[in-house]
Amino acid sequence: MALIVQKFGGSSVANKEKVFNVAKIITDTYNAGNSVIAVVSAQGDTTDDLIAAAHAINEKPSKREMDVLMSAGEQMSASLMAMAIEKLGCPVVSLLGWQAGFQTSSAYSLARIKSIDTGRMTRELDQNRIIIVAGFQGICKYGDVTTFGRGGSDTTADAIAAAMHADRCQIFTDVEGVFTADPRKVKNAQKLEEITYDEMLELATLGAAVLNNRSVEMAKKYNVELEVLSSLNPVPGTIVKEKIKMEKMLVRGVTKDADTTRISIVGVPDVPGVAFRIFDKLAAKNINVDIILQSYGHNGQQDITFTVARSNADAVLELLNNDYDKVVVDNAVAKISIVGAGMETHPGTASKMFEALYGVDVNILMIATSEIKISVLIDEKDADKAVSAVHAAFFAE
Amino acid sequence: MALIVQKFGGSSVANKEKVFNVAKIITDTYNAGNSVIAVVSAQGDTTDDLIAAAHAINEKPSKREMDVLMSAGEQMSASLMAMAIEKLGCPVVSLLGWQAGFQTSSAYSLARIKSIDTGRMTRELDQNRIIIVAGFQGICKYGDVTTFGRGGSDTTADAIAAAMHADRCQIFTDVEGVFTADPRKVKNAQKLEEITYDEMLELATLGAAVLNNRSVEMAKKYNVELEVLSSLNPVPGTIVKEKIKMEKMLVRGVTKDADTTRISIVGVPDVPGVAFRIFDKLAAKNINVDIILQSYGHNGQQDITFTVARSNADAVLELLNNDYDKVVVDNAVAKISIVGAGMETHPGTASKMFEALYGVDVNILMIATSEIKISVLIDEKDADKAVSAVHAAFFAE
Repeated sequence: MALIVQKFGGSSVANKEKVFNVAKIITDTYNAGNSVIAVVSAQGDTTDDLIAAAHAINEKPSKREMDVLMSAGEQMSASLMAMAIEKLGCPVVSLLGWQAGFQTSSAYSLARIKSIDTGRMTRELDQNRIIIVAGFQGICKYGDVTTFGRGGSDTTADAIAAAMHADRCQIFTDVEGVFTADPRKVKNAQKLEEITYDEMLELATLGAAVLNNRSVEMAKKYNVELEVLSSLNPVPGTIVKEKIKMEKMLVRGVTKDADTTRISIVGVPDVPGVAFRIFDKLAAKNINVDIILQSYGHNGQQDITFTVARSNADAVLELLNNDYDKVVVDNAVAKISIVGAGMETHPGTASKMFEALYGVDVNILMIATSEIKISVLIDEKDADKAVSAVHAAFFAE
Repeated sequence: MALIVQKFGGSSVANKEKVFNVAKIITDTYNAGNSVIAVVSAQGDTTDDLIAAAHAINEKPSKREMDVLMSAGEQMSASLMAMAIEKLGCPVVSLLGWQAGFQTSSAYSLARIKSIDTGRMTRELDQNRIIIVAGFQGICKYGDVTTFGRGGSDTTADAIAAAMHADRCQIFTDVEGVFTADPRKVKNAQKLEEITYDEMLELATLGAAVLNNRSVEMAKKYNVELEVLSSLNPVPGTIVKEKIKMEKMLVRGVTKDADTTRISIVGVPDVPGVAFRIFDKLAAKNINVDIILQSYGHNGQQDITFTVARSNADAVLELLNNDYDKVVVDNAVAKISIVGAGMETHPGTASKMFEALYGVDVNILMIATSEIKISVLIDEKDADKAVSAVHAAFFAE
């Protein structure tokens, strides 16, 4: 008998039919002889509706009260799921964050899990009950309700899998797993059987939003084996774990991130400390900088170019416009990346990618590399074409 | 500085405007130099909506899970009220039942309060914060969420007032107080300044549903002074307490209860134990019997007539039809009552009531009296006429 943790997002439980679809997955797992702890998010648009209700009353409510309000969404969803499982004839109990033992920091709305008191969950499993846990919530040392931010239900599931030493943590989504590229956009995109945590982290960061990044970090930290799979199509998904069996496939996926903006500061003095002053200023405002390119100086001047998330572009301009004469912003860019743990030992990977881009006449604006990733910044209009060409180069039929 | 507990029902917080109306009442009380603990119910139809959502999934959900679901209604309402008070610029904190220290029995959906750990509330008041408590909920010894049943928010408010030794407990409703008769039906119905717990209990039982009966019982037990008043019209309401100043008014109110059915068992043997067998059977099914009338026996036979709530009529018939030849049911009846603590020492009260009924040609079917109440059963069609006549007899302009 295995202990399986399952997580179902808001769209998987959005209405009565979907609730029963999920209840069936849970009870099938249970009836096959497993112990099951299932984590659910708020149903469908509930979270957005609650935010709208709050903002109608107070456009800047305290985060403490927002957490009380938001956590009700998962509370309702968890109790309704338990009722559906009762209806299917299995013993079940729903647990809220504080009942499941989630102790967190007191950073309301973005709380971090500090520890999980597993006593109650263990007792319920001993009673042979299915446990439904309301996702994304806990309590802090002040006895207040806290939430983990969007995507926090993944974190809840990971943390339970780690604390309860689960055999597997299944993250159910609306896709069948992790693909080598977005299957809606790229012909021949292939589902991966396995992927490493690090590869998954890069893919998540790069916009393949299958898994919440924080939850992958947590899974990696506690070595929890994740499976990404579909709640609508019951076929094996993609396993995310530390080490995977070697395959000839060096590159695991090709991704596009259009949520990026290129900012250039033109003609700054070519003296020590310039880059520090710029990026320290951005860091102080919690603005993440992605690719950085510093031009080769000449005539005592140089250009500094970097990318940020598009939502940060205005804030960056505001911060820098007073200090520098010429700050150029370009929103019409996209970042194309290939990710794969094997590529660091295969120097030909980068040139293969560049060749593919050249083959479809795509100009490269910036390049950034890491041990398991190569990213290029290109014109946004070329993005889909570029992804297809790069994908075709690495994933021949 | 006084400690005031205030309770606002679901209709008082049904939308944004009403939430701010209530927030204003709370902050006005606070800004006048008082400590305030406000108890809120779920907004408007939330409770009904949650019940419907549950029943769509499972027509017989466990009471445990229903309590998890239902308590979310008050949770959302409490956090939204706190946000409104933040908007009005006062320090505030919302507390759920378990945070406010409500320890209850584990009778899910009808839990009884066992104790209140006032530590958290005391600390919050020491911080000079307004406290918003989510009504009608607590936790039992198993660490499960429990609810108190409909009207439970009144009980929450009473219990807080008792445990925190509040100076007053204000129950805000959609009426301005307790009236001598239903002001929508009876001309010259007068608002009472004061009323005793016992009188209020009789009035509540008799269908003047201003206050929840259980909460009046609790207020009486802990000698909490209640005030019933309107959240829409800020005028003094009716004070409910143990002893009130003597007035010439012996009768405090006239009420009508149309939710009653008369059941007659005709021709039962006139031997010992007959009544016991009938009413023991009903008691075993938790059916409350109100007025009982046993006819004078002749020829070894007698009739037994009694009234029950109309919703119980079918169950009573089912229980008795097999045992007795002739069971007659009459739904077209209503119970008219006068209530007043002074009447027991004034023997003329009953005859004055009967005279008023005779004056408008109303036939009396049954009579029941207690120390502070006289009830008569009459034809339902005569009910409004009877209330007006009796009210006029006791409350001359």
